[in-house]
Amino acid sequence: MAKLYVVGFGPGGYEDMTHRAVSAIEAADVVMGYTTYIEMLEPYFKNKNFFSTPMTKELDRCRMALEEADKGKTVAMVSSGDSGVYGMAGVILQMAQDYHVDVEIVPGVTAASAAAAILGAPLMHDFAVISLSDLMTPLEKIMKRVEYAALSDFVICLYNPKSRKRTEYVAMTADIIGKIHGEDVPAGIVRNAGRPGESYTITSVGQLKEADIDMFSLVIIGNSSTYVQDGRMITPRGYKLEQS
Amino acid sequence: MAKLYVVGFGPGGYEDMTHRAVSAIEAADVVMGYTTYIEMLEPYFKNKNFFSTPMTKELDRCRMALEEADKGKTVAMVSSGDSGVYGMAGVILQMAQDYHVDVEIVPGVTAASAAAAILGAPLMHDFAVISLSDLMTPLEKIMKRVEYAALSDFVICLYNPKSRKRTEYVAMTADIIGKIHGEDVPAGIVRNAGRPGESYTITSVGQLKEADIDMFSLVIIGNSSTYVQDGRMITPRGYKLEQS
Ligand SMILES: C[S@@+](CC[C@H](N)C(=O)[O-])C[C@H]1O[C@@H](n2cnc3c(N)ncnc32)[C@H](O)[C@@H]1O
Ligand SMILES: C[S@@+](CC[C@H](N)C(=O)[O-])C[C@H]1O[C@@H](n2cnc3c(N)ncnc32)[C@H](O)[C@@H]1O
Repeated sequence: MAKLYVVGFGPGGYEDMTHRAVSAIEAADVVMGYTTYIEMLEPYFKNKNFFSTPMTKELDRCRMALEEADKGKTVAMVSSGDSGVYGMAGVILQMAQDYHVDVEIVPGVTAASAAAAILGAPLMHDFAVISLSDLMTPLEKIMKRVEYAALSDFVICLYNPKSRKRTEYVAMTADIIGKIHGEDVPAGIVRNAGRPGESYTITSVGQLKEADIDMFSLVIIGNSSTYVQDGRMITPRGYKLEQS
Repeated sequence: MAKLYVVGFGPGGYEDMTHRAVSAIEAADVVMGYTTYIEMLEPYFKNKNFFSTPMTKELDRCRMALEEADKGKTVAMVSSGDSGVYGMAGVILQMAQDYHVDVEIVPGVTAASAAAAILGAPLMHDFAVISLSDLMTPLEKIMKRVEYAALSDFVICLYNPKSRKRTEYVAMTADIIGKIHGEDVPAGIVRNAGRPGESYTITSVGQLKEADIDMFSLVIIGNSSTYVQDGRMITPRGYKLEQS
């Protein structure tokens, strides 16, 4: 049966790709994905048949990948980070029943993990992963998740924090969390983790609305015990360091 | 300055390791970690100086790694999955201020991503990551997180679901979620994801207490829209598949 790999290639650079992601891309007759993702991969894979598609029309792109595979081609559909976290895995599997294709989901290092490693160790305790995109989720539901996550003291990772049309949601999120934990709770922003131009800032939830955040950024907001030490954001797991 | 890599080597097999994790291990004069982790790595890295430590005494192990690095050795402290998710990154950074060591956190594919890829695409929407270990978190706080996560419709990933001493918490968790979403919400268990002996089960939250779950298992419980299709667990992102 024809094979479709749904590949998460990690934050962006070759060094954070898994061997399985690289093998899947190398095995593919055609590699499909958003233009931005294809441009990230091209330098690392010479003489590959890349096929890039615009950001919209996600469903058409998924159908095309399944059709190519159904015709007998080995296809790799790529997304950054983990293909199973706000990636392409879901739509592909939803559609897969109409085709004779063996779908393999290849997991990758998700942006939250990549960003956390740059900031320090903010995810050592329970955390919630929330997308601020309201394209397919009502804003009310998103903000309820923010509130309940803060009320039960989760560290919070924000994916898709901003787009050109949508800039107010980070401020709304910061307000909700600030009211619960106080304005001084640490917040970290990593832009382009593991990619050319990587940068990061550690600030507080009260200052978050002033920070430079865009759609290539991942935001991590601490819980009630997160602190900053020597420029690193740490959520302690509860160890008393004297213990031996 | 001496270097300490805190390496997440992914679920277990070589193919899910990143290139950066492999380079860090190869660059190290000594590779330290729990006995189980060292045993997983030994087949892939010949002639390495491995140093394995028992499960307890985590703090001593971290101090030892920092001390070795401070003496000038390049050290890799390894954990499975992502080193920043219930891994060693936090304690190392907490202690690092007492040493002259450059600490680099190397992220990896965390168990939730590895397990999700095997189950299908359960993490396509917002999710919460919760450890059921009450070693350092009061049970009450854990169960409040479970409840608030379910009330705000997160998919829920359970790490450390069981130990020999602690077997009732999965049942408590399932009860809480079952009352909120109903007993039929899909639940997936992956044991030894990406390792020899990998297995998985897809069941419902109502049946979860009957399932075979141990400390090498990761449990993913769906949200109100998660469903099972052709043996795969899918949390749709809200696409209507007719759209074009
Ligand atoms: C559609 S989601 C894709 C997530 C991806 N599948 C993952 O697991 O990381 C896109 C969002 O992920 C985050 N993101 C992905 N890669 C990133 C990176 N290298 N640095 C910072 N944020 C990133 C940003 O918040 C961005 O808006
Ligand atoms: C101390 S935590 C370490 C988590 C790890 N740092 C990560 O990011 O995956 C140990 C727990 O992670 C989960 N886990 C880690 N590796 C796993 C695997 N390969 N398969 C299933 N569960 C795993 C289990 O729930 C286990 O009890």
